[in-house]
Amino acid sequence: MARIHKKLRQEILKEKIESNPFLTDGELAVLLNVSIQTLRLDRLELGIPELRERTKQMAERAQDKLKAIASNEIVGDLIDLELDKQGISILHITPEMVFEKTQIARGHYVFSQANSLALAVIDAPTALTGVANVKYKMPIHIGEKLIAKAEVIRKRGNKSFIWVKTRNEKQEVFRAKFIMVSLEP
Amino acid sequence: MARIHKKLRQEILKEKIESNPFLTDGELAVLLNVSIQTLRLDRLELGIPELRERTKQMAERAQDKLKAIASNEIVGDLIDLELDKQGISILHITPEMVFEKTQIARGHYVFSQANSLALAVIDAPTALTGVANVKYKMPIHIGEKLIAKAEVIRKRGNKSFIWVKTRNEKQEVFRAKFIMVSLEP
Repeated sequence: MARIHKKLRQEILKEKIESNPFLTDGELAVLLNVSIQTLRLDRLELGIPELRERTKQMAERAQDKLKAIASNEIVGDLIDLELDKQGISILHITPEMVFEKTQIARGHYVFSQANSLALAVIDAPTALTGVANVKYKMPIHIGEKLIAKAEVIRKRGNKSFIWVKTRNEKQEVFRAKFIMVSLEP
Repeated sequence: MARIHKKLRQEILKEKIESNPFLTDGELAVLLNVSIQTLRLDRLELGIPELRERTKQMAERAQDKLKAIASNEIVGDLIDLELDKQGISILHITPEMVFEKTQIARGHYVFSQANSLALAVIDAPTALTGVANVKYKMPIHIGEKLIAKAEVIRKRGNKSFIWVKTRNEKQEVFRAKFIMVSLEP
């Protein structure tokens, strides 16, 4: 990309961060074809905090909205949440989450991240899992950062149909369809 | 049931324990319409250990057979195992497994018990979960003892189709179908 005018560049920067708030300054600098110093100045001028602070603010806002599950009951870090619509969480695969022999992540951790996220997006004081259909697409290893996105596809009575797709940095590794049941309407 | 001859009674006792090794002396005494003292004498004469010892022996034998998962990686206590055929595990629902607000068991513990049992029955050095379709049929509460039974329904190439049914003391509370993938044939 050729160098572009600062004002346009800052517009693009804003859009990039809105569509993916998890981009690092380094990644953004590459995308916009500027030095990391320029990128940081742009960010400061726009009043956009750095990645760590951005994530923290998002997480706090997300956790304030929780209804059907307590924040400490979520497996992974909740990063974004719109009740009855969608949610995002991040899980870092640590050594205690893998099988000793294969060093591959144990299936239930990936399930737990998705399952607790599906519960988080429910707009009701209490809810339970009714059905889960899940598919493991790739072995997952220590050190991987799993980003799970939940989307409420449909609601019918006290049932919510929720799809969760989980990616590592490269590709989709897992997907799940949940039917969650709200206990109080 | 009227009182029956001792020899016949001991035959029935043996059958009862074979078909359900988890019956207590009290439960067996009621089933056979004898006092608990008589029941214990019968058991001694037959050389059948008491429930606790019986369970321990079964667990040790089961754990010796494990291939695709280490004993300490199983969620719940493995009680019985025939590779490529079936397995049984028991999970006690403790306070840290329930949601604080509803005191109902978190779905992923029940999933984890079934999932690790499905892995335990695989007759291969390493295996992974491919697909899981699960249904939660009843809310599960603190103190419940969940007995999961896994059965290998079919094998095709490196894929094993395994059903797991989980009961509490009264009824089926959960069932799962897994497709497990062996990594080395």
